[in-house]
Amino acid sequence: MTLTLQQTQTILSAALDHAKQTDMKPVSIVVLDARGALKGAISMDGTSLKRASIATGKANGAISLGMGSRSLFKRAKEQAFFIAAATEAIGGSLVPVPGGVLIRDGAGEILGAVGISGCTSENDEAAAMAGIKAAGLNSDPGQD
Amino acid sequence: MTLTLQQTQTILSAALDHAKQTDMKPVSIVVLDARGALKGAISMDGTSLKRASIATGKANGAISLGMGSRSLFKRAKEQAFFIAAATEAIGGSLVPVPGGVLIRDGAGEILGAVGISGCTSENDEAAAMAGIKAAGLNSDPGQD
Amino acid sequence: MTLTLQQTQTILSAALDHAKQTDMKPVSIVVLDARGALKGAISMDGTSLKRASIATGKANGAISLGMGSRSLFKRAKEQAFFIAAATEAIGGSLVPVPGGVLIRDGAGEILGAVGISGCTSENDEAAAMAGIKAAGLNSDPGQD
Amino acid sequence: MTLTLQQTQTILSAALDHAKQTDMKPVSIVVLDARGALKGAISMDGTSLKRASIATGKANGAISLGMGSRSLFKRAKEQAFFIAAATEAIGGSLVPVPGGVLIRDGAGEILGAVGISGCTSENDEAAAMAGIKAAGLNSDPGQD
Repeated sequence: MTLTLQQTQTILSAALDHAKQTDMKPVSIVVLDARGALKGAISMDGTSLKRASIATGKANGAISLGMGSRSLFKRAKEQAFFIAAATEAIGGSLVPVPGGVLIRDGAGEILGAVGISGCTSENDEAAAMAGIKAAGLNSDPGQD
Repeated sequence: MTLTLQQTQTILSAALDHAKQTDMKPVSIVVLDARGALKGAISMDGTSLKRASIATGKANGAISLGMGSRSLFKRAKEQAFFIAAATEAIGGSLVPVPGGVLIRDGAGEILGAVGISGCTSENDEAAAMAGIKAAGLNSDPGQD
Repeated sequence: MTLTLQQTQTILSAALDHAKQTDMKPVSIVVLDARGALKGAISMDGTSLKRASIATGKANGAISLGMGSRSLFKRAKEQAFFIAAATEAIGGSLVPVPGGVLIRDGAGEILGAVGISGCTSENDEAAAMAGIKAAGLNSDPGQD
Repeated sequence: MTLTLQQTQTILSAALDHAKQTDMKPVSIVVLDARGALKGAISMDGTSLKRASIATGKANGAISLGMGSRSLFKRAKEQAFFIAAATEAIGGSLVPVPGGVLIRDGAGEILGAVGISGCTSENDEAAAMAGIKAAGLNSDPGQD
């Protein structure tokens, strides 16, 4: 199964609504598909310069290692050297704080990942999960 | 003036509609703001792996040098070495073919750039211009 | 609002005067605009080889993440892995010690950032703030 | 001999005046010292996003290879592969078009380089030479 354009539009729109309704600070929302390719993105007005890059790093870390970025956060606190090495090894960005959430279908297969950055990590993650839920898919934010 | 979330949503949606209605091959559409930051993006189903990266490179080249990527295409044919050097100098991607279109307001100020990739360069550019027009803004695709 | 040439000249000149009058060691002063683009710079005689690069990294970190580098300093002491990851994610330098100060206008909007390096971090920061104040703008150095 | 702060300020200010008085398009002016370190810079209002990076690349190419960028332009047209290889070898940017001018003292010693970008290459170069002349130093723009 593949993450579709329509699912991506629903994720972006619902995550954005969640952010607005809960008065989150301006966030960037990035959706990567199962290949790690950019499927969709939107940035609220007022984001800082590299906010979308941080969001991309959360999603990219999650999809690259097959675990929500909350798990990478735990790993970073225990073994920072692994995260540094993994970042180099994957040849791309990996931001190991909550807010990079895997998208899974009903069978548990990974369809992609959502990364959000700009507010607290907890809020970023909640918005990502709200977007994924609205598309009828399952969230895997990782574990502490 | 700043490229807004709402303008970006209109650009993405109208460019996507244009691509569908004209039976374009699957494209990625990327919108950067005046800072070169990712403001929005959407990829149709069936894009090749790095299509969004190519679209980003078209938009990034345009916003970095302040000219539509059609002008960079002309320069590349005349002085390929300049394009290679500029790519290194800007520290990011620069794809010098049509389809990277500057977004200007009524006063001519640059608000951002749209990059599209996946179909012919001509069609990619036309879709970008359709998106920008729908948002009531002006397109600057560059010149041959 | 945009950081102007004239404001930049005032910032550079006043920060330089501050550094001289307080007998600071030779510093480099770098001003980036809201896009992260180099708006102005000056290095005193006797700076070490890469001093301007460190100053750039302070300003670039601040403008990229939308917070003064003193806040990044705090984050670095708490979660060094985040700073390492963010550096990779933003695709540029990020020096998380005091001396990278956001420039805000009266409405709180970010206009750019000043980075200074060469003396103590405290003195570097004070010089940046003196420069920004002379231009009639507001400093945001971040928080411990 | 070393390029001084005062000479740098004169170069920046005189090059800027030249650009304004001859109605040049918005340019970025970058001054590197003999070590290739950033000694000073200023960008006019309205420069495109990466204009200062292009200016830096002109000056860096000149100081790296010890010849004005007009000589590098000639070389690029004859042997593009050399310029590409040199760019990689120097580990930094090198923009091989006119406008990167060596600063020499009366004895011919290289004190630094000025790079300007934003208008035509010819005008960029003329402004750099006007700045260097105002500081009582000699220009070496390279040869066709």
